[in-house]
Amino acid sequence: MQIQKARTQGFCFGVELTYKKALSETSERDDVYTMGNIVHNPLIVKELDEKGLHNVEALDDIPQGTLFVRAHGLPPQTIEDAQSKGLRVVDATCPMVTRTQRLAKKLAEEGRTVIILGDPNHPEVRGIAGHAPGCIVMNEWPSDETEIRRARRIAIVSQSTLNGDKFRELVGKIAAMNYELRVYNTICSDTQGRQKSARELAGEVDTMIVIGGSRSANTRHLAEISEAEGATAHLIENPTDLKREWFTGDERVGIATGASTPGFLADEVVDLLMDWFPQAEAVWA
Amino acid sequence: MQIQKARTQGFCFGVELTYKKALSETSERDDVYTMGNIVHNPLIVKELDEKGLHNVEALDDIPQGTLFVRAHGLPPQTIEDAQSKGLRVVDATCPMVTRTQRLAKKLAEEGRTVIILGDPNHPEVRGIAGHAPGCIVMNEWPSDETEIRRARRIAIVSQSTLNGDKFRELVGKIAAMNYELRVYNTICSDTQGRQKSARELAGEVDTMIVIGGSRSANTRHLAEISEAEGATAHLIENPTDLKREWFTGDERVGIATGASTPGFLADEVVDLLMDWFPQAEAVWA
Repeated sequence: MQIQKARTQGFCFGVELTYKKALSETSERDDVYTMGNIVHNPLIVKELDEKGLHNVEALDDIPQGTLFVRAHGLPPQTIEDAQSKGLRVVDATCPMVTRTQRLAKKLAEEGRTVIILGDPNHPEVRGIAGHAPGCIVMNEWPSDETEIRRARRIAIVSQSTLNGDKFRELVGKIAAMNYELRVYNTICSDTQGRQKSARELAGEVDTMIVIGGSRSANTRHLAEISEAEGATAHLIENPTDLKREWFTGDERVGIATGASTPGFLADEVVDLLMDWFPQAEAVWA
Repeated sequence: MQIQKARTQGFCFGVELTYKKALSETSERDDVYTMGNIVHNPLIVKELDEKGLHNVEALDDIPQGTLFVRAHGLPPQTIEDAQSKGLRVVDATCPMVTRTQRLAKKLAEEGRTVIILGDPNHPEVRGIAGHAPGCIVMNEWPSDETEIRRARRIAIVSQSTLNGDKFRELVGKIAAMNYELRVYNTICSDTQGRQKSARELAGEVDTMIVIGGSRSANTRHLAEISEAEGATAHLIENPTDLKREWFTGDERVGIATGASTPGFLADEVVDLLMDWFPQAEAVWA
């Protein structure tokens, strides 16, 4: 068995910033709340919960204190409501997401129809959509094209963690249906790098272990990309999910991690594989 | 045998305009010259040649008289040179191509890198490129991406007769490599309609007969699209090119024509097939 980690590992820039801000906030006060998990990684959520970062579903569930805006960001209306309620607001939105929110707002104000490529149920997308009234959110090509055909002066932005292949496909199709179009590729550089290194690695191995939250968009895309390259992909949240029967012992194994997966988890997977298969060799790219 | 013609037939708007202008010019004077064939259809070229529209390779080949700018257009420098030489210039550029030339010029003047999607050797593309200094012409995805990676503030336009599938593919790829991009889909509406009706028809028949000049870009794309839909496509310039052995007699046959193919040629192909296969049935969509 040969084991190799994808080049890009550890927290992305935005998760790192949010995580540090959360540590600092919870060290100073104990009435800090996030709406939804701070990042889509259960280990981090558990750690910060123990430090006093409380997870609530809705604004009404926060009695007083601080609304901590997580990396995904929030719609502007929610922040205004929090302020009206007298809550203190700490903004830990990923700077790249803030940039996309501002861009979407500006484009909508210019009278453009903003199309956000991404999952309409993902909190980042809901936050961006809140900045661009009248926007269209598209995750797959719609069976009914009426809304796209009627849209005028389209400007496209994307969820920061969108799969690059989907971006190419949807942008091409929308462009073919319109005379004039603006496209902003707001897939963040970390996502692009992580997808690229997962794709390269998946092309060389038999089995890919992708570590990250099962609800994490960017993690799921790494698994999709790995399967598209012909590798068998297993998505796990932590090393204890790893199953001995997935391996024969003489395959090549690649390990990729999502943007909110702590770097040490990949090393724990390596260690576990080396325990199971003492002849295994860890290869560094 | 069932025979069916694609919905869009006959000269496109631009070819019709150019053709009528050429008839009118040649009825008034006999020193009228085009650089290259007036349209990519040998029958029309022959007819107008007999009426006195002379075909030359270069400006130097025109002794005096009128330079007739054909539907594909010309680079501005060539027109200036003709005027300096004392030639009268009649502009019969297709109005949709003129619009793309002006757009490319404006975008280049705004400091954008214009990418023209199309065949670098096609006269229309050379004409548009002449309006946008520093532009990049792309017909296929380049093996060396350096030029695209270095380009800043990209704006995409396309040859009026580009294959829509190629447009989608190249736009998607370029967009994925850049933060900000403008896209102008300058594939003309006639081309889009003709490709759509050829695609629909090819999906329902076994054999497609595509009639048009072998050097006509839009005609060749109709054949490509037909093959992509699973039909066997034969590209012919006129009905006498049709071969009896291409048919078994019990297949479904579709007929599509290029933008510079006179409508009566499709009817001649229908007649010939009905002669060869008296049981054949012409179906009207």
